[in-house]
Amino acid sequence: MNTRPETPTLDKVHLPADLRRLSDADLHRVADELRAETISAVSETGGHLGAGLGVVELTVGIHAVFDTPRDKLIWDVSHQSYPHKILTGRRDRIRTLRQKDGLSGFCKRSESEYDPFGAAHSSTSISAGLGFATARDLGGDPGDAIAVIGDGALSAGMAYEAMNNAGHMGKRLIIILNDNEMSIAPPVGAMSSYLSRLYAGAPFQELKAAAKGAVSFLPPPFQEGAKRAKDMLKHLAVGGTLFEELGISYLGPIDGHDLDQVLAVLRTVKARADGPIVIHAITKKGKGYAPAEGAADKGHGVGKFDVVTGEQKKAKSNAPSYTSVFAKALTAEAEKDSKIVAVTAAMPDGTGLKSFMDRFASRCFDVGIAEQHAVTFAAGLAAGGMKPFAAIYSTFLQRGYDQIVHDVAIQRLPVRFAIDRAGLVGADGATHAGAFDVAFLSNLPGFTVMAAADEAELVRMVATAAAHDEGPIAFRFPRGEGVGVEMPVDAKPLEIGKGRIVREGSRVALLSFGTRLQEAEVACEKLAQRGITPTLADARFAKPLDREMILSLARDHEALITLEEGAVGGFGSHVAQLLADEGVFDRGLAYRSMVLPDIFIDQASPRDMYDVAGLNAEQIEAKVLAALGVEMMSKRA
Amino acid sequence: MNTRPETPTLDKVHLPADLRRLSDADLHRVADELRAETISAVSETGGHLGAGLGVVELTVGIHAVFDTPRDKLIWDVSHQSYPHKILTGRRDRIRTLRQKDGLSGFCKRSESEYDPFGAAHSSTSISAGLGFATARDLGGDPGDAIAVIGDGALSAGMAYEAMNNAGHMGKRLIIILNDNEMSIAPPVGAMSSYLSRLYAGAPFQELKAAAKGAVSFLPPPFQEGAKRAKDMLKHLAVGGTLFEELGISYLGPIDGHDLDQVLAVLRTVKARADGPIVIHAITKKGKGYAPAEGAADKGHGVGKFDVVTGEQKKAKSNAPSYTSVFAKALTAEAEKDSKIVAVTAAMPDGTGLKSFMDRFASRCFDVGIAEQHAVTFAAGLAAGGMKPFAAIYSTFLQRGYDQIVHDVAIQRLPVRFAIDRAGLVGADGATHAGAFDVAFLSNLPGFTVMAAADEAELVRMVATAAAHDEGPIAFRFPRGEGVGVEMPVDAKPLEIGKGRIVREGSRVALLSFGTRLQEAEVACEKLAQRGITPTLADARFAKPLDREMILSLARDHEALITLEEGAVGGFGSHVAQLLADEGVFDRGLAYRSMVLPDIFIDQASPRDMYDVAGLNAEQIEAKVLAALGVEMMSKRA
Repeated sequence: MNTRPETPTLDKVHLPADLRRLSDADLHRVADELRAETISAVSETGGHLGAGLGVVELTVGIHAVFDTPRDKLIWDVSHQSYPHKILTGRRDRIRTLRQKDGLSGFCKRSESEYDPFGAAHSSTSISAGLGFATARDLGGDPGDAIAVIGDGALSAGMAYEAMNNAGHMGKRLIIILNDNEMSIAPPVGAMSSYLSRLYAGAPFQELKAAAKGAVSFLPPPFQEGAKRAKDMLKHLAVGGTLFEELGISYLGPIDGHDLDQVLAVLRTVKARADGPIVIHAITKKGKGYAPAEGAADKGHGVGKFDVVTGEQKKAKSNAPSYTSVFAKALTAEAEKDSKIVAVTAAMPDGTGLKSFMDRFASRCFDVGIAEQHAVTFAAGLAAGGMKPFAAIYSTFLQRGYDQIVHDVAIQRLPVRFAIDRAGLVGADGATHAGAFDVAFLSNLPGFTVMAAADEAELVRMVATAAAHDEGPIAFRFPRGEGVGVEMPVDAKPLEIGKGRIVREGSRVALLSFGTRLQEAEVACEKLAQRGITPTLADARFAKPLDREMILSLARDHEALITLEEGAVGGFGSHVAQLLADEGVFDRGLAYRSMVLPDIFIDQASPRDMYDVAGLNAEQIEAKVLAALGVEMMSKRA
Repeated sequence: MNTRPETPTLDKVHLPADLRRLSDADLHRVADELRAETISAVSETGGHLGAGLGVVELTVGIHAVFDTPRDKLIWDVSHQSYPHKILTGRRDRIRTLRQKDGLSGFCKRSESEYDPFGAAHSSTSISAGLGFATARDLGGDPGDAIAVIGDGALSAGMAYEAMNNAGHMGKRLIIILNDNEMSIAPPVGAMSSYLSRLYAGAPFQELKAAAKGAVSFLPPPFQEGAKRAKDMLKHLAVGGTLFEELGISYLGPIDGHDLDQVLAVLRTVKARADGPIVIHAITKKGKGYAPAEGAADKGHGVGKFDVVTGEQKKAKSNAPSYTSVFAKALTAEAEKDSKIVAVTAAMPDGTGLKSFMDRFASRCFDVGIAEQHAVTFAAGLAAGGMKPFAAIYSTFLQRGYDQIVHDVAIQRLPVRFAIDRAGLVGADGATHAGAFDVAFLSNLPGFTVMAAADEAELVRMVATAAAHDEGPIAFRFPRGEGVGVEMPVDAKPLEIGKGRIVREGSRVALLSFGTRLQEAEVACEKLAQRGITPTLADARFAKPLDREMILSLARDHEALITLEEGAVGGFGSHVAQLLADEGVFDRGLAYRSMVLPDIFIDQASPRDMYDVAGLNAEQIEAKVLAALGVEMMSKRA
């Protein structure tokens, strides 16, 4: 157990209004204590550490200068919001972060009025901020809109769309560019190089007072040269022509860990900004905690850890993660076929492609947080004769949906989609759930859609995708560890559109798509004790369906129950469509489709989330009994 | 009937290779004749006129200089590709443009090897081009990649994502910025102003030879000052710092209608480019055809017309278009409620919001081609207390899917989505079909999803959306004219989740979602002649479903058939899920779900497309008879 830090000044801050009564000297103390408290909290809960430590001074500064919650503070992604949560009335629950019934790891409107706009995906804050600013000017909610966005998030087109619009509209909008030269991985792309050049060219140097634009609104005290103003001016440079060309004033770069500088700039901007402005703050991910600063990912996402040593307490794993199985299988395929290339949108670690990249540096492309481009870039690669694998989490694939339809599906280009984090994901909660991909892909003509039931199946599906050159193909697999099954030595491609019978039984057939197969197995064991022996099948394909197998299951059983880790509209809906088309329902069939329920499920362990979803073994057992009209006597006893 | 132009030089050009054998003087003749031929063709077919006329010289220049199809020419959007089609072996079919079994109005891989990458949605060409360039450098298809993209398309984040990545990768990639200062509507956004300033600052002026970057690769003959080179240099300026900051060389602006200049610049770039480069060409939409140049939309999309007068032969309309009904109804609601605002992504005309904008200039926002931003901007407006209507075509809403999930649905923000062009759209073909929105919206928790059965229903749904403040709500309606029903004088909001019975009948129930209701009515009339009188219901809501009505229809009929203008996974799938959950299938029900089939349907009239889809009255009738086990004697007779 780590000892908790002493935080006498922070203890006096219950809400941001308390900050505004403190001296600047006390604000320094608050910042130091807030950093210690953040480290302490995350050491107990695990979670996003580095990002929060990088914005401690910005968090204190913004809340001290602006009138939150009347002024709307919007954290982009918001995994850096733990210090913000501590300052905004949630300190007493900060050690429940990312846990069931605890605080979300992200900002959430339903959690606090200090979270005016939730997030978890990247690059939405400027759009939302412009919405607030526009509403304000039309008589909606009053107050400033302040968006804090990382440099990595600027690689997403959405942020550019918002700046393009903000520059055009000219409304007062405060954008704080939190430039830590880190995305989750080191950032890529020309914008990132550009930002580095801005800083390299003017590292907190003399203010070029002659430069146009942003300087003009500095208030007289600053122009006249009071001590603080001089200190600030000394550290200000004016550059950032790219922002200015988009109609947005630019101030910076400033040192985002120099609280005096942060306070001075924010006070100036608050007093004088009359349009959109970017404050370019240089920060350090993991700042002030040596183990984080020293880590390659700057303590991006950590487990519980020892505060003194930084050592993380990670659970021992019994089986390899699906992610690593995918990466290894893809690398093996790529050894055999030089046309195989891989694309990631800023997630080389998360998708496992880092290891592929290490082996095939010239055949792996990290395009930045840019899923739209990633998909069409992959389509271009396919049109140019390559075999691209686009490895994108289910939830982020939503960003590239139009490109999947318009550039991939309509053109029948053989892009391979490796969809990680399918289904419910645990601590990241509803915003990261991979709930919709089966539905939004399976109704696209010409698409092949698979889900792996275990890690051995995943290896087979990688081989299947590698061999499939007739059109787009996707395979999905969950977050976390496999089930420990034996791995195929030399995986052969699966026959397209063919499922497999896992258990032969009678009366009821369970037809699983994905890793619910394990729960179905457990349910079958439980049912056997009641004398019910279901047939269990692994569909493997949501598209094309194994018509023959499914119709035979329907014909030979009283009840047919589909299982999947996705929302209605996906696998079960395609099965129902087939059964309806074939007139199977005319003669009666106890058909049920177990899907994710019609709610967004808050964070918990995946197992607990699937309990809420009603997709665990007990619930499968209950569904079977209900479909067969058998009463669950044991529950009544 | 218009007389066809004389085109003696063009007649000698069957494929681009023929161009490469012509003198520059002859290329001038080809360009002039190509313009006349384009006007002549579109006068017979209707279609996109202005865009093609604006790129005649660029089209001739690119094909004359580059080695198409080995070099990959990628037209962004590709509605400007008619001259390209004429030059690439499709002249004999150019008068079938946009017609059933004719040439597509867009580039299409399946149509010609000269269309290496199809398009129709905007801003994909740089991503695709970078894919080709990367594939080439890895041993895939050889040749240059040339993307031609309009200034309007640069407002989309996807284009920025691609430039950010291209600038980082540094591969040879030729981007021609076709700057006609027009999107479909006049362009908006800061990027547009920036491009204008580039041109205003350097209108074809002296080359600033001292400037860095792009100049360095000018070949010696140009630097030494041959006549043509001098002419060219005189007209070149180097600026475009925004592109250069993204790592992309910049050449321009050049006069895109000065063929000599175009040829000289393209030859230079072909010879010397060693990384990504933007050629900034200033063009005029509708160039060379006075009626188009003089029109507000520069002849963007026209019907058949008289070449001499420019007068378009538009069909007389009997009923108002759904689009205009929507706009009028929204304006009426906005008169009553000052919180109502509207957002469009570069489609003020197409969505009808132009009229709303005329009435409420400060409450209507054209954010440019930027659907991702549009959706989250609307979410921000809603969070700030406004009542935003985001009016976006079904097919373009795909671009904002993640934002719909992450920013709107998870936060339950009351954004109103007005989804025009739902279902099949006619001449624009598969790329513009609104096939997937019901599926991808209806499985989002907390969403309300409606479809209008006719224009009076649309008015009621606008009122319903205006009144609905509890979460997101969407209503969809088709392209084209209403059915001429009487309009409600003072439309009241519908009860959420309640459908209506249109005809009481027996044996079979038809449950329609959307405008298939008209076809179902016709089918009912036909069936009545066979003694079959179906019950006909209008579901109004795909979410929440009218459970009571649907279960009662299922209980009281032998057969239940759902109808919708969307793919599987949508309305019918939700109905099937309900029926399954309630055990309705256990006891037998001839349930059928009529949805769009699993193919992308090529352009034709909407009625013909729905014939292919199997969703017209005859096919509904046949489905009813088959479900009831009645043989269609008349067809056998």
